[in-house]
Amino acid sequence: MEDYSAFDYITVKALEDGVSIIGLTRGKDTKFHHTERLDKGQVYAAQFTEMTSAMKICGKAEVYTKHGKILSE
Amino acid sequence: MEDYSAFDYITVKALEDGVSIIGLTRGKDTKFHHTERLDKGQVYAAQFTEMTSAMKICGKAEVYTKHGKILSE
Amino acid sequence: MEDYSAFDYITVKALEDGVSIIGLTRGKDTKFHHTERLDKGQVYAAQFTEMTSAMKICGKAEVYTKHGKILSE
Amino acid sequence: MEDYSAFDYITVKALEDGVSIIGLTRGKDTKFHHTERLDKGQVYAAQFTEMTSAMKICGKAEVYTKHGKILSE
Amino acid sequence: MEDYSAFDYITVKALEDGVSIIGLTRGKDTKFHHTERLDKGQVYAAQFTEMTSAMKICGKAEVYTKHGKILSE
Amino acid sequence: MEDYSAFDYITVKALEDGVSIIGLTRGKDTKFHHTERLDKGQVYAAQFTEMTSAMKICGKAEVYTKHGKILSE
Amino acid sequence: MEDYSAFDYITVKALEDGVSIIGLTRGKDTKFHHTERLDKGQVYAAQFTEMTSAMKICGKAEVYTKHGKILSE
Amino acid sequence: MEDYSAFDYITVKALEDGVSIIGLTRGKDTKFHHTERLDKGQVYAAQFTEMTSAMKICGKAEVYTKHGKILSE
Amino acid sequence: MEDYSAFDYITVKALEDGVSIIGLTRGKDTKFHHTERLDKGQVYAAQFTEMTSAMKICGKAEVYTKHGKILSE
Amino acid sequence: MEDYSAFDYITVKALEDGVSIIGLTRGKDTKFHHTERLDKGQVYAAQFTEMTSAMKICGKAEVYTKHGKILSE
Amino acid sequence: MEDYSAFDYITVKALEDGVSIIGLTRGKDTKFHHTERLDKGQVYAAQFTEMTSAMKICGKAEVYTKHGKILSE
Amino acid sequence: MEDYSAFDYITVKALEDGVSIIGLTRGKDTKFHHTERLDKGQVYAAQFTEMTSAMKICGKAEVYTKHGKILSE
Repeated sequence: MEDYSAFDYITVKALEDGVSIIGLTRGKDTKFHHTERLDKGQVYAAQFTEMTSAMKICGKAEVYTKHGKILSE
Repeated sequence: MEDYSAFDYITVKALEDGVSIIGLTRGKDTKFHHTERLDKGQVYAAQFTEMTSAMKICGKAEVYTKHGKILSE
Repeated sequence: MEDYSAFDYITVKALEDGVSIIGLTRGKDTKFHHTERLDKGQVYAAQFTEMTSAMKICGKAEVYTKHGKILSE
Repeated sequence: MEDYSAFDYITVKALEDGVSIIGLTRGKDTKFHHTERLDKGQVYAAQFTEMTSAMKICGKAEVYTKHGKILSE
Repeated sequence: MEDYSAFDYITVKALEDGVSIIGLTRGKDTKFHHTERLDKGQVYAAQFTEMTSAMKICGKAEVYTKHGKILSE
Repeated sequence: MEDYSAFDYITVKALEDGVSIIGLTRGKDTKFHHTERLDKGQVYAAQFTEMTSAMKICGKAEVYTKHGKILSE
Repeated sequence: MEDYSAFDYITVKALEDGVSIIGLTRGKDTKFHHTERLDKGQVYAAQFTEMTSAMKICGKAEVYTKHGKILSE
Repeated sequence: MEDYSAFDYITVKALEDGVSIIGLTRGKDTKFHHTERLDKGQVYAAQFTEMTSAMKICGKAEVYTKHGKILSE
Repeated sequence: MEDYSAFDYITVKALEDGVSIIGLTRGKDTKFHHTERLDKGQVYAAQFTEMTSAMKICGKAEVYTKHGKILSE
Repeated sequence: MEDYSAFDYITVKALEDGVSIIGLTRGKDTKFHHTERLDKGQVYAAQFTEMTSAMKICGKAEVYTKHGKILSE
Repeated sequence: MEDYSAFDYITVKALEDGVSIIGLTRGKDTKFHHTERLDKGQVYAAQFTEMTSAMKICGKAEVYTKHGKILSE
Repeated sequence: MEDYSAFDYITVKALEDGVSIIGLTRGKDTKFHHTERLDKGQVYAAQFTEMTSAMKICGKAEVYTKHGKILSE
């Protein structure tokens, strides 16, 4: 039994086409797990999960985390 | 036994017809799970669930998250 | 044993006749579960439940969520 | 064993005779469970329960929820 | 084993003789469970309980709930 | 095993002789359980208990609850 | 196993000789359990306990509760 | 297994020689359990314990409780 | 298994040579358990423990507790 | 069963090409576990995990931690 | 199984060479357990542990505790 | 099963080459466990762990703890 409900999430708003949010795997190997591509203006809310312990944002976007709003470029 | 009650939710208000909220699956594969289409003015409140760990909003909408109000376009 | 007490709820006040609050099912399939129709001025307070992980509001209404008051149209 | 103590409650003050607070059932079927009628000036404090996951207020009343005070009409 | 200690309570101050606080039963049937009558000036503090999930106040009184002070009439 | 420590308490200060604090029983029957009489100026701090789910204050007194200070008369 | 640590306590400062703090028993019978007499200026900090669910203060004293400072007389 | 860590403590600073902090026993009998004598200027921090549910301070002292600083005399 | 991590601690700064912090034992007998002597300027941070339920500070020192900073003399 | 959801995360925004975030292993040996390289403008949100108890950031970047925003160089 | 994560820590900054932080053992005997020596300018962050229930700082240093910053000398 | 997620972390920014963060072992022996060397401008975020109960920072650095920002030298 896992408790999926407590995972924190970040929100990303793409400011250009082709922004990618890359999920990296948890555990012994830190590998690319999933890449989500966003077009300009799309918003994406993504939890950390039992599979994903890190997320990398490439391209011009607003990244909303618990540390505030950060502009990726 | 799962505790469904603690899942956070986001709220989306469509600002045009055809806004879509796409749920992506949790776990090994991150696939499209459900797409909800909203017409202009409709409001949609959706929890993260044991199936859904990410949501993508396409189209002009107000997206209310714990990081505040974000305009998708 | 489920703990029904912790589910969050939203409140909707209809601003016209025929506002509908549609509950969507939790789990593998996200289907329409229940539609409640409100006449102008009626107030409806509804929890997320073990059956309902999303709610869609159609028609002119005030929707009160933890993200504040949102006008549906 | 259920923990009845944690259920949230709303409070309703009728502003006219014949205000009704309708409890809707939790679970697979969302049906009318109980209707309480209030005369003008009466106050009614009602918990969500293991039977009731939604409440509908019809008639002119002040509805006090965790989202504040809402006037039903 | 029940935990009686966490039940919330409301407080009522009668502003006239004959104010009644009616407890309604929890569960499948929502019936009148107990009626307490107050004379002018008396104060009554009552918990929700494992038997009582709703309370109705009739007559002129100050009703103190977690939503603030509400005048019943 | 009961946890007596979490019960909330109210405090009453009698402003005249003969103020009574009446404890009403929890459960199926809501009956008078105990009456404590206070003389002018006495202070009484009383918990809700596994026996007492409601308290009625008769006579001129200051009643301190979590809803603030209420004057009984 | 009881958890004695969570019991709340009140503090009393006697303003005259012969102030008494009377502990009343928890449970079916609410009887006098213990009377502590204080001389002028003495300070007494007393927890509610598994035996004591109410305390009565007679005589001129400052009574410190979670509802603030109350003067008994 | 007892959890000693959660017991609250009070702090006493003696303002004259011979201040006494008297611990009274928890449970059926409320008897003197321990008397600690302080000379002028000494500071004493004492937890409520599984043995001690009340403390009485005699003599001129500053008594620091969760209700603030109280002067005993 | 004991949980040592939740014990509160006080901090003492000696303002003269020979300040002593005396730990008194928890339980049936309240006896001297340990005496730590500080020279002028030394700082001592000490938890309440499963052995120590009270601490007595003798000599000129700053005693930092959850009730603030108290000067012992 | 591990609870992955409570791990804190830091966020890094690269201010030049080739910024590296190096994860160091938890446990007896503290070794390099994973190095993620960021190009200028990329944003990286990374949890501490059951494998990673320390992270080292090399190169010019904004590092957002619970201690605020720190510039690495 | 012990939960090491909840132990509080203090931080010490040495203001001269030879500052020592002495850990004293928890339990029946309170003995010296470990002495860490710091040179001027070094910073030391140390948790209370299952072995250490008290820490003594000798020498000129800034000692950061939950009671604030204290200068040892 | 250990819960690694609750360990607190500190963050260090080196202000010169050769800053070292030394982890000291938890438990009976307090020995050097791991030394991480930082070059000027590097940032290092490190949790206390089940192995590490103390950290010593040598060299010119900004040390961010829950007690604030401390300059090591």
